[in-house]
Amino acid sequence: MHSTLPTLANIHDAALTAKLQSTLDNKTKPQGSLGRLEGLALQIGQILGSATPVLEQPQMVVFAADHGLTARGVSAFPSDVTWQMVENFLAGGAAVSVLSKQNGIALTVVDCGVKHDFLAGLPAGATRPGLQVRKVAGAEAGTSDSSAGPAMTPAQCTAAMEQGRELVRGLPGNALLLGEMGIGNTSAASLILARLAGLDIAVCTGAGTGLDAPAVLRKTEVLREVLALHAAAVQPLDVLAAMGGFEIATMVGAVMQAAEERRVVVVDGFIASSAVVVAHALQPLVLQRCVFAHRSGERGHEFMLQHLGVQALLDLGLRLGEGSGAALAWPLLQSACTILRDMASFASAGVSEKSTDAVTA
Amino acid sequence: MHSTLPTLANIHDAALTAKLQSTLDNKTKPQGSLGRLEGLALQIGQILGSATPVLEQPQMVVFAADHGLTARGVSAFPSDVTWQMVENFLAGGAAVSVLSKQNGIALTVVDCGVKHDFLAGLPAGATRPGLQVRKVAGAEAGTSDSSAGPAMTPAQCTAAMEQGRELVRGLPGNALLLGEMGIGNTSAASLILARLAGLDIAVCTGAGTGLDAPAVLRKTEVLREVLALHAAAVQPLDVLAAMGGFEIATMVGAVMQAAEERRVVVVDGFIASSAVVVAHALQPLVLQRCVFAHRSGERGHEFMLQHLGVQALLDLGLRLGEGSGAALAWPLLQSACTILRDMASFASAGVSEKSTDAVTA
Repeated sequence: MHSTLPTLANIHDAALTAKLQSTLDNKTKPQGSLGRLEGLALQIGQILGSATPVLEQPQMVVFAADHGLTARGVSAFPSDVTWQMVENFLAGGAAVSVLSKQNGIALTVVDCGVKHDFLAGLPAGATRPGLQVRKVAGAEAGTSDSSAGPAMTPAQCTAAMEQGRELVRGLPGNALLLGEMGIGNTSAASLILARLAGLDIAVCTGAGTGLDAPAVLRKTEVLREVLALHAAAVQPLDVLAAMGGFEIATMVGAVMQAAEERRVVVVDGFIASSAVVVAHALQPLVLQRCVFAHRSGERGHEFMLQHLGVQALLDLGLRLGEGSGAALAWPLLQSACTILRDMASFASAGVSEKSTDAVTA
Repeated sequence: MHSTLPTLANIHDAALTAKLQSTLDNKTKPQGSLGRLEGLALQIGQILGSATPVLEQPQMVVFAADHGLTARGVSAFPSDVTWQMVENFLAGGAAVSVLSKQNGIALTVVDCGVKHDFLAGLPAGATRPGLQVRKVAGAEAGTSDSSAGPAMTPAQCTAAMEQGRELVRGLPGNALLLGEMGIGNTSAASLILARLAGLDIAVCTGAGTGLDAPAVLRKTEVLREVLALHAAAVQPLDVLAAMGGFEIATMVGAVMQAAEERRVVVVDGFIASSAVVVAHALQPLVLQRCVFAHRSGERGHEFMLQHLGVQALLDLGLRLGEGSGAALAWPLLQSACTILRDMASFASAGVSEKSTDAVTA
């Protein structure tokens, strides 16, 4: 598979940037004193093309799938936890469920290839609220074991990305929060990082859901084998097909579509960021639309953020995924817009500006 | 003035801690995977004495006062900005106003000694919504210039602390967010830090509202003079009276009262933390009740957090004060409680637990 560079508009607009900066500088506060919240306000203003941006109908999408590589024992939890957690998302009991609800974020789960039939026992054509079934490889199939061959075919990879685009086209609002679920998917994310950033797998591999140190070493050696098997995969889409996951490939398409539509993309942790690493390799301008919610406690995430040259908002040692960090960071995005829209200026509030004779006594 | 150690109950309860930890560990997530949010949940549960804590009617109090030391030109902004910003808080146009509103936090401004009459032209006995006038030194008076003598008398210091206690006794809810306004008050906070933590004033002094490098050096030399003048002030309340501010002294009383009542105290930045440094010197157990909202961009704050041995939630380079960082962090406290109260457990959701045969292949 060869990637053709998807076209994407450069959203940088010098006049709007100047207007946003001047608006921020004239708010009743010392210039720059709201720190990174000001940069966030600038970015959201640019994405939404407005000096008074309004975030509308935020959509958390949890992309779920199973991974053939789990046959090699790379996770501390059994594969069944993927479908069990999807049921938990739908029932409202998971972290991403309660945090999305707290923050007024709509939640959709997409079955991109979970080894389970969520519609079993329902009449043909029935649906379940909050669930989209879009199985890339047909009934109850996850990816193939990437230590034995490619995780997916080129056609499956293309189909996954296309359904990710289609999914986003159908969502309301102007903000997409990326979540995911898939036992084994820290392995896929580590493999993508190692190959696309040119890093040794040892620095890309972490404890995932809670491996101990010897198990992390064994996981690392399995991943090293996988990389050797797929030594020829170096182009972004080849890497994605050879070693990725259906949820990650669907997310890559979703990110590309959201970027095209100038939605604000809120990136959760290690797995969601791995989809952005692929999207960025295809088209670096996607980063203009991405807000990185947090720096994960998962080992490779810091190097992923370094590779992308970005800084995350929160640093709380989160390593849960699901979109939980994106939901936690969401109020900060709202605050950034509130600052731009609702704060008074020095002139409107009648507040004196900085004096020039400080400490001259 | 000699401080008598105020009594304060140790809220640590081994049985409740065990219950909180077990509740967190049985939620549908890998143990510890919500990082510092879990420690926050434990702390709030301990403060409120509940395994299902509910934060109620959060109260942002902005303590405002003027500083005699501004005669020495230690601030980039003129003293008039204190009263102008108080009017801005009351009109809803300041950062703390819009962020409190966004997050459902009630806002009260306390005039502890602003050089302005906020009730001018109103009938005797009239009040203004959201404002409490509690001037420590009478009409339109701030502290005295601490480079010429003590900032306040021992009686004024005691009165300020007492009115802080009284104020908190009158507030509804179980959470107090500390905000402040006072041109010149980074100087007072730096002086308190230097003396009570035993640090050189050079590492405690920063740009405040925006001094340039030469002005920071001049400010540092003024503060060094102040410290030399008050070399005999070493006890916490003596330090507070000699070099503090009316808003800081009132805040110290408010913190002590809130701690006694087992309210959750959300500490904003450099100035609010300086009040906690004094309260901590009087009674270390106050820290059990304090959540540090953010690490400020103001130079001394990091050393203040180190001195107290605490870690802040956010690190966004904020250096505005007012309580803006406390308001920004507030949703994280709500999330911590939501996790405890609303997430499903492995048993209730029917999710498999960690397997013991990972990576044995």
